[in-house]
Amino acid sequence: MLVDHHCHSVVADELDEAALGALITESDRPPAPGTSPFDSAIGLAVRRWCPPLLGLPALAEPADYLAARRETGAAEATARMLAGAGLADLLVDTGLTEAGGRPLLPPADLAALAGARLHEVVRLEAVAADVRAPAAQWPDAVAEALAEACAGAVAVKSVLAYRAGLDIPGGPPARSEVVRAAGARPPDRITDPVLLRHLLWTAVGLALPIQLHTGFGDPDLRLRRADPALLVDFVRAVEPDGVPLVLLHGYPYHRQAAWLAQAYPHVYADVGLTLSYTGPRAATVLGEVLELAPFGKVLASTDAYGLPELYPVGAAQFRRALATVLDGWHTTGDCTPADVLRITEALGSANARRLYGI
Amino acid sequence: MLVDHHCHSVVADELDEAALGALITESDRPPAPGTSPFDSAIGLAVRRWCPPLLGLPALAEPADYLAARRETGAAEATARMLAGAGLADLLVDTGLTEAGGRPLLPPADLAALAGARLHEVVRLEAVAADVRAPAAQWPDAVAEALAEACAGAVAVKSVLAYRAGLDIPGGPPARSEVVRAAGARPPDRITDPVLLRHLLWTAVGLALPIQLHTGFGDPDLRLRRADPALLVDFVRAVEPDGVPLVLLHGYPYHRQAAWLAQAYPHVYADVGLTLSYTGPRAATVLGEVLELAPFGKVLASTDAYGLPELYPVGAAQFRRALATVLDGWHTTGDCTPADVLRITEALGSANARRLYGI
Amino acid sequence: MLVDHHCHSVVADELDEAALGALITESDRPPAPGTSPFDSAIGLAVRRWCPPLLGLPALAEPADYLAARRETGAAEATARMLAGAGLADLLVDTGLTEAGGRPLLPPADLAALAGARLHEVVRLEAVAADVRAPAAQWPDAVAEALAEACAGAVAVKSVLAYRAGLDIPGGPPARSEVVRAAGARPPDRITDPVLLRHLLWTAVGLALPIQLHTGFGDPDLRLRRADPALLVDFVRAVEPDGVPLVLLHGYPYHRQAAWLAQAYPHVYADVGLTLSYTGPRAATVLGEVLELAPFGKVLASTDAYGLPELYPVGAAQFRRALATVLDGWHTTGDCTPADVLRITEALGSANARRLYGI
Repeated sequence: MLVDHHCHSVVADELDEAALGALITESDRPPAPGTSPFDSAIGLAVRRWCPPLLGLPALAEPADYLAARRETGAAEATARMLAGAGLADLLVDTGLTEAGGRPLLPPADLAALAGARLHEVVRLEAVAADVRAPAAQWPDAVAEALAEACAGAVAVKSVLAYRAGLDIPGGPPARSEVVRAAGARPPDRITDPVLLRHLLWTAVGLALPIQLHTGFGDPDLRLRRADPALLVDFVRAVEPDGVPLVLLHGYPYHRQAAWLAQAYPHVYADVGLTLSYTGPRAATVLGEVLELAPFGKVLASTDAYGLPELYPVGAAQFRRALATVLDGWHTTGDCTPADVLRITEALGSANARRLYGI
Repeated sequence: MLVDHHCHSVVADELDEAALGALITESDRPPAPGTSPFDSAIGLAVRRWCPPLLGLPALAEPADYLAARRETGAAEATARMLAGAGLADLLVDTGLTEAGGRPLLPPADLAALAGARLHEVVRLEAVAADVRAPAAQWPDAVAEALAEACAGAVAVKSVLAYRAGLDIPGGPPARSEVVRAAGARPPDRITDPVLLRHLLWTAVGLALPIQLHTGFGDPDLRLRRADPALLVDFVRAVEPDGVPLVLLHGYPYHRQAAWLAQAYPHVYADVGLTLSYTGPRAATVLGEVLELAPFGKVLASTDAYGLPELYPVGAAQFRRALATVLDGWHTTGDCTPADVLRITEALGSANARRLYGI
Repeated sequence: MLVDHHCHSVVADELDEAALGALITESDRPPAPGTSPFDSAIGLAVRRWCPPLLGLPALAEPADYLAARRETGAAEATARMLAGAGLADLLVDTGLTEAGGRPLLPPADLAALAGARLHEVVRLEAVAADVRAPAAQWPDAVAEALAEACAGAVAVKSVLAYRAGLDIPGGPPARSEVVRAAGARPPDRITDPVLLRHLLWTAVGLALPIQLHTGFGDPDLRLRRADPALLVDFVRAVEPDGVPLVLLHGYPYHRQAAWLAQAYPHVYADVGLTLSYTGPRAATVLGEVLELAPFGKVLASTDAYGLPELYPVGAAQFRRALATVLDGWHTTGDCTPADVLRITEALGSANARRLYGI
């Protein structure tokens, strides 16, 4: 049973082809004329792993799958997907509450359907966006709000990569800078780099692991500013505090993330989103991460969001990719069967249990 | 039969070892002492695919191949190469007229030898270089020249990556900027970033797909400035116009190009040049592109230039790389035989026919 | 028998688990809680190749290996490691004299134990750090010191990537700049970019090949500034002098290094350190280099440093990776058995003998 150390909730509604397709691409635009989101690596992965959960053969055509989903009913299909993922623990980023305009299940319901223990990951920017305080009080108000929001949480999450890019100075901003930026901030969305850095350093004070989005994402992202190697000054500045930094996704800069995980004791990496999105190619990508990343530093996640199908897909993609990599290493004489078991256990659950104390 | 959506004409002259070798490397310098351009991935690819077209076994030694080529005669050898590529349509970049000091065949002769339909791709910088007009009239004169040159064309091509790099602002330059830059421009080569951007935006007005060189090329290129991810502002600025942007080659930043193709509906990608150059490794590189690029967004090309051999090499490399990738996916249960056929058809011709309306 | 064109000396002391573990990671920090440096790709490589040299089966557990090492005695174990690497020539970077606080063997002893011929590679920054001269005389004093130090050397080595990053201007700094920077330099470590560039250009005057660290390394490195593509201006500026530039390691930017090796006649590349560190994945990484790098431009090295085990590991990793790549190419019909032999000879020794004149 895996620990899914980074995921989101899902939509339990009926979904037609367009709505389902929109949840298996990082694009928030309609597909180009003549193309379908199912004709992609992740589309193949969904067709590979999900139809059997609805009684169809693997690789059923999208239309047949959608018909079976309708017939099964969205609630039952959602339940089968979540139960079919085989997850022991979910670390849910609670900062998102809808996908494509549809509400997400409450996290407790999500975990109940998955038969998994629930742990909360608090999204820094979401908490801070709700803080209403005069600029001079904003730093303290944010610190209080975060401390409160994190009371039962096991980690925090930052989307700095989306909002301002990862090329930030190492240390915290001066309080005067933060107050100045808070005075000028828009009412409901934190995008100022000074404020975003303040959130990160406030989180450092909470001593919880900090998950950071790195690498590819939706069109709102500037890919080059999401290279985790840009974080090196921040990584060094945090090192004395010993707060773990968890670099999520990373692709196509996942080899850079792996180097950081080798070089710095407090840096960890995952390739959750990436293994789902790269479909038949997932083992290659995971292999690339394991070139430099210590096996004690790599974590499993589905990064599922919106579509219930992404839970069994993410879990199966992780399991198969890791098995493919390790079976290959065993076949070529590079590790023993005992190594295969130990590494599988480490990446699948033990590393996350140790890191998050769960 | 493939649609080769990006290629150039070839030299039909006799070529000795040095001349032929010079056309299978991106370097325009003599090889280093003791080395030969044949000792490379693309050298192996040429030896793999071309000798059988001259009656020799695959992987014949370069000296034997050159002897057979001489004996066959350059005209006949050229004809066999082009006919042997199995191409239905050629989209020829007509902006180059010589290679290594030797004239290229007229495009119509090239297409006739290939037994393929000819379509023209107009190179923006080549047309603009010939425009003689006072600076104040230059923007309009260029627009007229491009409109005229593109009357029968199916696409335009930009070599911005070579001339100024892809890190350009999103929107078009102001007319006053263009006029100022036109006043200072050298007589026969457009290198000013303002003028190059003006060409791109003039092309946007023509509503033809814009092919952009990205990734590796000859020593004149600054590789880091050819990363397609640098284009993100331009990509976003063009999106409302809906004009397709086709990112050529991309390597070693082809995963970045693939992400852009997933994120933005109007972005397409190819790895033509790359598949020829990487020889035995082509399937791996193509696989990397298919990790994120929707299958409806990837195109086939030879990017052949100068050497007739690059036509059958490019076509065979594409066909084999795609077959290797898809057979592998079928073997591991990741797609059906019907998927293999559909994806093969999409990348090989259907995507290009839809995109270019041919 | 390989030519190891870039390596360092080793510690012949007894090493406990912590000390040995500290020499198989690029990190100079203690491992994260609950993790071990043996649980990594390079850890597997050490367990794969070294135990048989001490009479244990391949992949023996670390504790068993360490026990056998103690029982064998450090001197004997060191001798077996070095002799077991099968190296004909060592090009030793003599700029490091200790590892983890322990002294390194004198290079002559190292070579004697390896049964290999010794050649010296002079580390520019190490020589320059010892030069004591008033600022106005510093440029000449450095030139004299380097000329003297290089009297018997076959190459020089630069760690510019660590000290200031590879994004330097093309040409040499003006003498006045150098004098000014020399006046302000700290007493025993050269970190000023102007001084580092002066060292490189002084080396160009010596007409020896210049080895440059590129790509990953220890936590002191800023990875993004170690991208070899950043060197393009320097590469172009050196080209008229014809002095070879050898890009070491490169990873994860090794495809960029390979492009430079194709584009510029005087550029060479290796992936020595990388092949040891990436363990079971080494063939993939070497394959990526051979996509664009001419086979006459790629070199073999162990980059062994500190731990004697890294000699047999580096040599075995190189041999197996190359054999895996070439056997694969032969199996898929991409090269002949004669090609396999020729390419093996080229990368393993012939290229280095030609380049360094040994």
